[in-house]
Amino acid sequence: MTPADARLLRLLGPVEADMQRMRDILVAQVADASAAVTDMTQHLGRFRGKQLRGALVLLTGRASGRLTEEHAAVAAIIEMIHLATLVHDDVLDAATVRRRVACVHQRWDNQVAVLLGDFLYARAFGLSTDLSSRLCSRVLSETTRQLCAGEIDQSAQRYHFELSQEHYEAIAGAKTAGLYAAACDLGVRYPDDDEASGAELRAFGWDIGLAFQIVDDCLDLMGDPEVVGKSVGTDVADGKVTLPVLFVHKNADHTTRARIRDAYTLPGLEDRLGRLNEVCDLEPGVEYAMARAEELVARAMQRLTTLPPSPSRAALEELSGFVLQRRW
Amino acid sequence: MTPADARLLRLLGPVEADMQRMRDILVAQVADASAAVTDMTQHLGRFRGKQLRGALVLLTGRASGRLTEEHAAVAAIIEMIHLATLVHDDVLDAATVRRRVACVHQRWDNQVAVLLGDFLYARAFGLSTDLSSRLCSRVLSETTRQLCAGEIDQSAQRYHFELSQEHYEAIAGAKTAGLYAAACDLGVRYPDDDEASGAELRAFGWDIGLAFQIVDDCLDLMGDPEVVGKSVGTDVADGKVTLPVLFVHKNADHTTRARIRDAYTLPGLEDRLGRLNEVCDLEPGVEYAMARAEELVARAMQRLTTLPPSPSRAALEELSGFVLQRRW
Repeated sequence: MTPADARLLRLLGPVEADMQRMRDILVAQVADASAAVTDMTQHLGRFRGKQLRGALVLLTGRASGRLTEEHAAVAAIIEMIHLATLVHDDVLDAATVRRRVACVHQRWDNQVAVLLGDFLYARAFGLSTDLSSRLCSRVLSETTRQLCAGEIDQSAQRYHFELSQEHYEAIAGAKTAGLYAAACDLGVRYPDDDEASGAELRAFGWDIGLAFQIVDDCLDLMGDPEVVGKSVGTDVADGKVTLPVLFVHKNADHTTRARIRDAYTLPGLEDRLGRLNEVCDLEPGVEYAMARAEELVARAMQRLTTLPPSPSRAALEELSGFVLQRRW
Repeated sequence: MTPADARLLRLLGPVEADMQRMRDILVAQVADASAAVTDMTQHLGRFRGKQLRGALVLLTGRASGRLTEEHAAVAAIIEMIHLATLVHDDVLDAATVRRRVACVHQRWDNQVAVLLGDFLYARAFGLSTDLSSRLCSRVLSETTRQLCAGEIDQSAQRYHFELSQEHYEAIAGAKTAGLYAAACDLGVRYPDDDEASGAELRAFGWDIGLAFQIVDDCLDLMGDPEVVGKSVGTDVADGKVTLPVLFVHKNADHTTRARIRDAYTLPGLEDRLGRLNEVCDLEPGVEYAMARAEELVARAMQRLTTLPPSPSRAALEELSGFVLQRRW
């Protein structure tokens, strides 16, 4: 266990029993009578991850005094939806398949990844229809729709170097912050409170989710693959122009702009991130983006002051700061 | 309009007004505020298809005297789920991408097909959470789970020439008949009747759905691509051993069995279906499979006698027979 893991574990102390119930529900839900499906879902352990979204449901529920017996199931449903998106992220483009040798060795092929993700979505929605309230089904189907629309828009905006920061944040928000916002919204509102009562914590979730995505985009440019735990430079390879690059491009001269575009687009280039680092200094862009993430986290922490002081509120504050410090 | 189309249109006469409402709901649901999503969903017209599943909701609802204002929405939700599965079927394996030249020209790439399918699933579940009853959400999340599990199992059983007919039918049932069964089940039961009351029509839907899939598998071996409207031989290319081939393989001598396997597996073979036709006579297998489909349809029609006579019941009978005669 790394020091970061140990810290996260301690931070979740106030809801540890519920976190364990959430994990038990997850394990039960991804099991299936079919041997072929079970064979697939057993590999999902590698996606276990930090379960921050589930933790947010439980911490906001406890901090607002609204935690119910069903919150652990709501947390499990959100984690399953997140898991489904991760599995679907593994599906590669035809172009990417042709470009990357690694895909030949991927554990499962595209079609099975699609089906497994669909299976997880169906399980998540199925579990939500068993809950006493329909709020979870409603919030999550709408959040999932926004998530897909955000990803489709991101795909449409590839290689778009004049993308506004507002549009970048709308995409990053829809694809990442929406699920954080939904987690906090449901934590406070489930099973039946009105929309207004969840608004402040929903905004808290959105802010830290957006900060999380911005940090993620910075790590993809600057992170050490050994520490981040996944390959870096994938955004550049996939044509995604993230906030640090948008900033650098905006402030670059005409020649550098052309070189940045070339690093993304020249056919046959193996190490696009390496080339990008050669033709421009990404550091100011990363600094700018990290400053924006810090601003979002500060605003998020401010929103928490609407909650009464408690160990869970303190955990939410610490977790917000954690988003900025993570190196994975 | 082909004679088959005209016949289908006439057949749906008793529920034409509701079919039109279903189509209006579909159009409204696949629209999105995002330009990128709308750009994608506009291409979905090509998937318009026969809308048999939606028609079954409406015909069984009317034939059982249970049709409500909300049945058109239930029908639209089922069609959206079907649409999502079609879009996800378009996602190609890494292996298939490498093998087929055609994929380079496909209209959209794998990642966008995944996201668009997810978007449609989310819209379908979202719409179901707006209905007065949760029955639709419950039946369809469970049906979708079974559908995915069936497809995953099918993928696991590729190149399995000793697959039992029972196992083949379990897979074909889960991936195709389940949605037909759910359509009829919801048609009769929505919004709130108990499970027993839908059992007979649910079994009717299962039988004709399974017959539909068996006919589909026969058409993939024997159909004229011009008439079927899609390429044939894809099952052989994808390693799917369907009922006609299982029958021929079972009754073949040792040498022919080896040749059948070779037609599926020899590396570099371009026209696998052509090779399969050279090494064995598929006709008896197709005859056997079609006889099984006829048996299922006869059983399905028998189940309809539990309904009082009506134009909608007559339409369901005719539609059952239609499943056997279709050449598309």
